[in-house]
Amino acid sequence: MKLFRTLISLEEALRTVLAYAKRIEQEEIGFDDALNRVLAENVHSPVDSPPFDRAAMDGYAIRGEDSFGASPNNAVRLRILNKRVEIGAGECFPIQTGMPVPKGSNAVVMLEYTKERGSDLDIFRPVTPGKNVSFIGEDVKKGDVVLKEGRVLRAHDLGMLASIFKMTVRVYKRAKLGLISTGDELLELSVKGGRGIADVNSYVLAALTEKIADPRRIGIVCDDYESIKSAIRLGLDDCDGLLTTGGSSVGKRDFLADAVSDLGVLKFHGVAIRPGEPTGFGIIKNKPVFVLPGYPVAAISAFELLVRPFLYAMHGVKEERANIFAIASKNIPSAVGRTDFVRVKLICTDKECYVEPIRVSGSGILSSMTKSNGFVLIEENKEGIEEGESVAVVTNTFF
Amino acid sequence: MKLFRTLISLEEALRTVLAYAKRIEQEEIGFDDALNRVLAENVHSPVDSPPFDRAAMDGYAIRGEDSFGASPNNAVRLRILNKRVEIGAGECFPIQTGMPVPKGSNAVVMLEYTKERGSDLDIFRPVTPGKNVSFIGEDVKKGDVVLKEGRVLRAHDLGMLASIFKMTVRVYKRAKLGLISTGDELLELSVKGGRGIADVNSYVLAALTEKIADPRRIGIVCDDYESIKSAIRLGLDDCDGLLTTGGSSVGKRDFLADAVSDLGVLKFHGVAIRPGEPTGFGIIKNKPVFVLPGYPVAAISAFELLVRPFLYAMHGVKEERANIFAIASKNIPSAVGRTDFVRVKLICTDKECYVEPIRVSGSGILSSMTKSNGFVLIEENKEGIEEGESVAVVTNTFF
Repeated sequence: MKLFRTLISLEEALRTVLAYAKRIEQEEIGFDDALNRVLAENVHSPVDSPPFDRAAMDGYAIRGEDSFGASPNNAVRLRILNKRVEIGAGECFPIQTGMPVPKGSNAVVMLEYTKERGSDLDIFRPVTPGKNVSFIGEDVKKGDVVLKEGRVLRAHDLGMLASIFKMTVRVYKRAKLGLISTGDELLELSVKGGRGIADVNSYVLAALTEKIADPRRIGIVCDDYESIKSAIRLGLDDCDGLLTTGGSSVGKRDFLADAVSDLGVLKFHGVAIRPGEPTGFGIIKNKPVFVLPGYPVAAISAFELLVRPFLYAMHGVKEERANIFAIASKNIPSAVGRTDFVRVKLICTDKECYVEPIRVSGSGILSSMTKSNGFVLIEENKEGIEEGESVAVVTNTFF
Repeated sequence: MKLFRTLISLEEALRTVLAYAKRIEQEEIGFDDALNRVLAENVHSPVDSPPFDRAAMDGYAIRGEDSFGASPNNAVRLRILNKRVEIGAGECFPIQTGMPVPKGSNAVVMLEYTKERGSDLDIFRPVTPGKNVSFIGEDVKKGDVVLKEGRVLRAHDLGMLASIFKMTVRVYKRAKLGLISTGDELLELSVKGGRGIADVNSYVLAALTEKIADPRRIGIVCDDYESIKSAIRLGLDDCDGLLTTGGSSVGKRDFLADAVSDLGVLKFHGVAIRPGEPTGFGIIKNKPVFVLPGYPVAAISAFELLVRPFLYAMHGVKEERANIFAIASKNIPSAVGRTDFVRVKLICTDKECYVEPIRVSGSGILSSMTKSNGFVLIEENKEGIEEGESVAVVTNTFF
């Protein structure tokens, strides 16, 4: 058996993988298929929105200046036009929210401040010109950049695209990411109820990857050097990159790092993170291969700390992860010299949020993930977190 | 034209819709198709996990008591067995993380605290019995509930299901939700670059709904009473419920509330929320129909405040929305007597998060949504938020 000679810091590992995150190609797709896709263009609006001056309230379009002096005891009386024509002094026209205001008018007086008197209208409150009107281009001006390259498209963004009649958008393709699980002990799930170990990692990684890339489960490979090399070669024929799990340490039957070295260049092996220390990264035929630990929690930790940032960079994501700050409700110990990936339970009251670490007893304990709803990173040079300290919690990857 | 006689509070509206949120049927699906689905059963583990006592570290399986007294200057020497047999006093066996520990052993001494001397092993640090071993059932015990009914399944949960060989799960079906957009002014998107108004709502609502239900765009209907009734009838033939947008106010051409009344029972019309006041809800043939405003931001507000909670209840979701607390960086004014749905920009530094309201100028301004990354609710009886105040921000529905 061997030991890791040196562990590199998370920072250095991250710098290395990001240096190899080649941007993936682009494609043009229907805007209504683009939810969660990453925009590869700046979208300029070809139109003004609203496309005309429109009423923002139900009421009457008027010339605002005509209402000056109106009060509950001293109504201003205007003549109601019965056709949509240009509005002159002393005239008004009934209008609904969203409808174009007639030429000549510059304000809408709300229904509740008016009363119809036959063909006349009494107004009980003055409105300044511009009031209750959305002017042409107020939302978006023709030529404006409404959505920027690198944005992960949300529901509201699809609405914006619809509103400017942008039927297709250029987005980054979804990388085909091959998932290989290694280990003699792994059983296919169809082997029900055996006293064996199920292939957990390829399902978790597929689900974690799904929102951004196109995961492909390549299957389970046993701890055999040639089988592993052959699975990597085959996987790379079809995919833009690979995530392997298991066999990533330095024991007699840990073949992954050697296999990557043999087929390409191993850029690093062994990272000062816990869990997830036995993580490696290499380039084979210009494609990235992540060598991840076999224990699910360690694989998830390495995924969140290294693979996810890599995938974001590869897919051109320019958004930052939002932190939640919460108060540590207990001490969270950590050793100096490594980055700790701590699973936590975030509990929010009406006033603030607390985090509690999930009792950790090894990276084989998957229930530490299902019991948590976020994670906290404790940096390499930090000796744990003290009760009462404010900490940043990452939760968005949990949903 | 008419006015809303009375507006009901958000609280009352919510109570009403939730009273009609009939739980949808269940179905059994493959666990690996179950990401984001809502669990309809308590999942008990049929197995112990780990299924045997296993090594949590690379090293040597020993009887912990044999290492007592070991130190860097005073190694304890054990005999290395060359076969996996029961370990006796003074014996050890090399072992890798994840492998079953041999009978007789109760601890693993880490590789780094040992040195092989031919067929013997020197140990430089004592380990207590139990150290570096994950005992059978430590993660999950046979019979334990590992995931509870009402949980929205996450990536990690699929891993848990895999680890206990749970190949299928019972989940709530996804409701078929019909989306009808009404309005003479609405253009199909294929009418490019016209000076018209695009059908934004059905796309936004489809995207907002997609994660939990199965949205179906029924199409655009013009402001005609009979056409609207006919679209509602047709929609309900196929769907479990409807969301209509537009024509929801009390103007001459606002037919939706009347149409719902005519076909079934209108439970309320007019809610004290802004934007989103002209929102109604009815039951037709035992199915829910939400009458939402035509302005996209108002429709989104009503969706977040009423439809989303309804869908969660209908689909059995038992998780709570996580709040982020942030400091208001500006005053956010609000009128007493209505709940305000304020679009905000959440900005986090290394230490804390701030929110800034997006300048609001009417519920037609869709860019107020795309510029925001969260929302803040200002309750009915609250007169705005003051600069420096801590407020709860909802962000998770934005991704």
